[in-house]
Amino acid sequence: MSNPSSAPTLKTDTPEVPLELEPVSTHKSYTYENVRGWRQYRMLRPCRGMYHDVCRRLPYYWSDITDAFTYRTVASTIRMYFVNLLPAVAYTLDMYRRTGEFFGVTEALFSSALAAMVFSILGVQPLTIVGITGLISLFNYTIYDIILQYDISLYPSFMAWTGIWAAIFHWIVAIFNLCDYMRYVTDFSSESFGMYVGIIYMIKGVEELVYEFEQHGATAGYLSCIIAILYFASIYSLEKLGQSTVWVPWFRGILADYAYVFATLFWVGFSHIPGRLKDANISKVPVTQAFSPTQPRNWLLEFWTLPIQWVFVALPFGFLLMLLFYYDHNVSSITAQARQFPLKKPGGFHWDFFLLGCTTFVAGILGLPMPNGLVPQAPVHTDSLTNYTTELKIISTTEGEGTEIRRPIVKATAVVEQRVSHFLMGLALIGTMTGPLLTVLHTMPSALFAGVFFVVGWGSIESNSIVHRLVFLMSENRFIQRDEPLLQVRRRAIWLFIGLQGLGVVATVAISQTIAAIGFPVLIILLIPLRTHLMPRWFLLSELEVLDDFTCTNKQVLASLGGAPALPEHSKEEDWGLERRRSEQRFGLRRQRVGSIQR
Amino acid sequence: MSNPSSAPTLKTDTPEVPLELEPVSTHKSYTYENVRGWRQYRMLRPCRGMYHDVCRRLPYYWSDITDAFTYRTVASTIRMYFVNLLPAVAYTLDMYRRTGEFFGVTEALFSSALAAMVFSILGVQPLTIVGITGLISLFNYTIYDIILQYDISLYPSFMAWTGIWAAIFHWIVAIFNLCDYMRYVTDFSSESFGMYVGIIYMIKGVEELVYEFEQHGATAGYLSCIIAILYFASIYSLEKLGQSTVWVPWFRGILADYAYVFATLFWVGFSHIPGRLKDANISKVPVTQAFSPTQPRNWLLEFWTLPIQWVFVALPFGFLLMLLFYYDHNVSSITAQARQFPLKKPGGFHWDFFLLGCTTFVAGILGLPMPNGLVPQAPVHTDSLTNYTTELKIISTTEGEGTEIRRPIVKATAVVEQRVSHFLMGLALIGTMTGPLLTVLHTMPSALFAGVFFVVGWGSIESNSIVHRLVFLMSENRFIQRDEPLLQVRRRAIWLFIGLQGLGVVATVAISQTIAAIGFPVLIILLIPLRTHLMPRWFLLSELEVLDDFTCTNKQVLASLGGAPALPEHSKEEDWGLERRRSEQRFGLRRQRVGSIQR
Repeated sequence: MSNPSSAPTLKTDTPEVPLELEPVSTHKSYTYENVRGWRQYRMLRPCRGMYHDVCRRLPYYWSDITDAFTYRTVASTIRMYFVNLLPAVAYTLDMYRRTGEFFGVTEALFSSALAAMVFSILGVQPLTIVGITGLISLFNYTIYDIILQYDISLYPSFMAWTGIWAAIFHWIVAIFNLCDYMRYVTDFSSESFGMYVGIIYMIKGVEELVYEFEQHGATAGYLSCIIAILYFASIYSLEKLGQSTVWVPWFRGILADYAYVFATLFWVGFSHIPGRLKDANISKVPVTQAFSPTQPRNWLLEFWTLPIQWVFVALPFGFLLMLLFYYDHNVSSITAQARQFPLKKPGGFHWDFFLLGCTTFVAGILGLPMPNGLVPQAPVHTDSLTNYTTELKIISTTEGEGTEIRRPIVKATAVVEQRVSHFLMGLALIGTMTGPLLTVLHTMPSALFAGVFFVVGWGSIESNSIVHRLVFLMSENRFIQRDEPLLQVRRRAIWLFIGLQGLGVVATVAISQTIAAIGFPVLIILLIPLRTHLMPRWFLLSELEVLDDFTCTNKQVLASLGGAPALPEHSKEEDWGLERRRSEQRFGLRRQRVGSIQR
Repeated sequence: MSNPSSAPTLKTDTPEVPLELEPVSTHKSYTYENVRGWRQYRMLRPCRGMYHDVCRRLPYYWSDITDAFTYRTVASTIRMYFVNLLPAVAYTLDMYRRTGEFFGVTEALFSSALAAMVFSILGVQPLTIVGITGLISLFNYTIYDIILQYDISLYPSFMAWTGIWAAIFHWIVAIFNLCDYMRYVTDFSSESFGMYVGIIYMIKGVEELVYEFEQHGATAGYLSCIIAILYFASIYSLEKLGQSTVWVPWFRGILADYAYVFATLFWVGFSHIPGRLKDANISKVPVTQAFSPTQPRNWLLEFWTLPIQWVFVALPFGFLLMLLFYYDHNVSSITAQARQFPLKKPGGFHWDFFLLGCTTFVAGILGLPMPNGLVPQAPVHTDSLTNYTTELKIISTTEGEGTEIRRPIVKATAVVEQRVSHFLMGLALIGTMTGPLLTVLHTMPSALFAGVFFVVGWGSIESNSIVHRLVFLMSENRFIQRDEPLLQVRRRAIWLFIGLQGLGVVATVAISQTIAAIGFPVLIILLIPLRTHLMPRWFLLSELEVLDDFTCTNKQVLASLGGAPALPEHSKEEDWGLERRRSEQRFGLRRQRVGSIQR
């Protein structure tokens, strides 16, 4: 019970995990501060980041296994299996159709399992879940559309070379410590990215339903719409229920944690009720023989047969893929280690990005969709491993006796940091590739996956700060609490800020609908220099401090990125992220559900 | 801006409209207090209530017309036209099919228009909207099912006699001042009734969709489900938006007030989009020739041809119909004049119930569904005529500077009490009976009306106190504010209270599914003596004061019912309705939307 008379001020830091970060560059810490001469250029010191990443984490390896013997690991494994598998299948359905059935469910499962194995065993940060995203689907079918204009038989080996080039670029980035620049990523671009992904997913959901109409007729189409809408409504309601104060916290937790499990079991069953529902004959997830590629081919693509000029055409595509993963994977890793989680073990970006290069290489030559860090799922994994307590905060009011506000404050007490849940989830994915479980997968209606798109997409849109600020601007001023930090910002500055974000989102969504879709990572990445170089001229520093925040704020994480970013003059670290701090201090943590891309 | 330091206690009365109620029986006031001898028996003083009703209201008749020249009257007319017409058509679709197509849309429109004309011109309380309910539909088709077992050709004239007998009982009740007993109706029965109606409507909505599957096949069925679900979602969201603090109050008001209008226009249009949607060929509202009965018959039923024994069989049916209307009509009139509306003009129950007998008689002999007071629509009418202001209430908290609560408090400033909106709505209904507008009506898909059932039904369930108390019992105690009156009640007393209500609801819903459905008014009425005679033995008086409240609390209304009800010893009027008072005082009025049967 908090003391109602203590009125902490806004800028007070929440207590943090003590961290032994030494300020000068030693062999034990990774920083470029206070170093002179050639040593200050990170490009000249290859592998330094990777070396420090491994050194920092290796002492914890044994505890990563022994710490796992708790219920949370079991719960996390089940939850992450569904939360990883369902969206992966959803994206694959789309990719399957649009790449001439080259990438199928088997490939997606193989790729997810491969990534889970590699990152759970070898990754420095095993919390970061790696798998199939909707963006790799977009990437792959756009390449398909391009190759289709020349000679479609080149597609498999072209994809292999794209993967090989991308892998090479990954390794270069990792070796030359270039992940360090991720610390300059702010919410300006990461929230735009979240909005972009949300909109793309909503569109994908609708396309899935349209496809059902085209292939299976009106009856199947309408039934699919109903299943998609009600599946969405089920998960949404269960998660809302989890945030309420009915029943007891652990039971609410179960409802929200396993929302996907319950809703999926129910609606799959629903679609199989004999009679009218079964007769509608809606389409099911297409599966092929266990452990075999969807196409009649060997697993290893004959990439050495690609004509040499095409090998070099693949180079820029590989570069674009690396750009996408540079942003997407690292942001997902950052959010999995966000400040709100009381993590005690260090992470590492350079080493993990090197590993990602390896999985990209393997996925490329085996003809799998390349896996990368999953922005919504990675923080959900950490969330599923976190022990929360719901505390009661009593705030007296002057309204009369008994009218005090009794607010539930969710606090994170500890995270079960280990590798086992990730590993077990990977084993479960391999299990899903076997005959019997593929048959189970085949019973699931495609419509369900349209629902998955809606859940993930809408979650990302609803929780996006662009939307919140739009609502703020449209709200009646008199009902806004006076300590709202946005009130310190000129209204037109807010309009300009979300206007620029909106422009970025619209541009990216628009090109995603064309054959130029392949270039979308460039647009996302361009938002970073726009923010760092142009925007400080248009906004006051104090406004940017309210409107924007560094995406990477956890000191544990910054240790791998070479320390905190250089701030503008007169700006202090604790002046940033006022909105987040205020919200966390007064209302507690918002738990990470799968339906929200960004925190 | 309210003074945050003033902390009014709970039991303080909200200021009321001053009312010149003289305490003793004179020729000017209607009461049986302080009278002795035969005069204290209301049965012995026929027509006394009706006389006083008319005397009280007649002086305001001219102002009922002149007061109408404001925008509110226009807004109210449009809103009430939709809110009256759509449910009436929804109930009629059901009744049409289940009475061998005897009662059709024409009859429903005629009946609604007749009621609107009679009550707007002659009624003492023109705010009470009178029309077709779902219960009369249930009543009519249950009689159809019964007659079907004997000789279905008797149905029209049997219905006519049911109406005639019902009319006679209405007149008896009105003449012998029996409406007075309505003041003893408490929320125990009226909330049970609201729950019952809500559940029945949800069932009706589903039945409507099932029928679509049976008659028009799977494609039309599934599309109908989609339209019904999304129509429901549209209205629900618009009304929620109206309760938020985005945009400005008048704009929010328009969104919420015309939610039915916007949603109906949109979804009717949607169902007519050429291509797949139009091809699904979903069913439309069946209409017949303008101004003609649905069946090839004269308007006047040949009730004199009914065999004499059947005339007397109709007598108990007429009595049951009167019982239903006694409860339903009077409760709707009471809620239209609820305490929250600052009404200045008096109402009258005896006279209006006499009029209801007249409309029942006319509807009976013309073969129309009998109209009565519409529980959700009547208070919506008053709401639509009320000028609201949204005030800002600032409540300081001890959480720190700027953290005060800024709560929107809706207050009703005045009601435009007049007859014109009711009258114009009636004219519009007559207009709808003409050829061109019937054609417009025929473009509306039946699925929309399944959506109407869901809106009205769910609104009634969601706002029901049975649900709220169930949520209270299941909530974590520590998050409940200490001034919640329910905390003063033993938990098992709350369980028993809502258990008894639940039992009543379950019993009524259950018999509504059988041929004994006709008896449901008896069950509802039986809840009143259960409450007044048995329940005081099982509950403490202080508990009943929290759990229950008199449905009729407005002094203006009690003036027509012979004054406030006799209370148990040691109980004071201001001890009742603590929950409502607390809520209104702290959070302001909840505006009456059509989706909530009870206040």
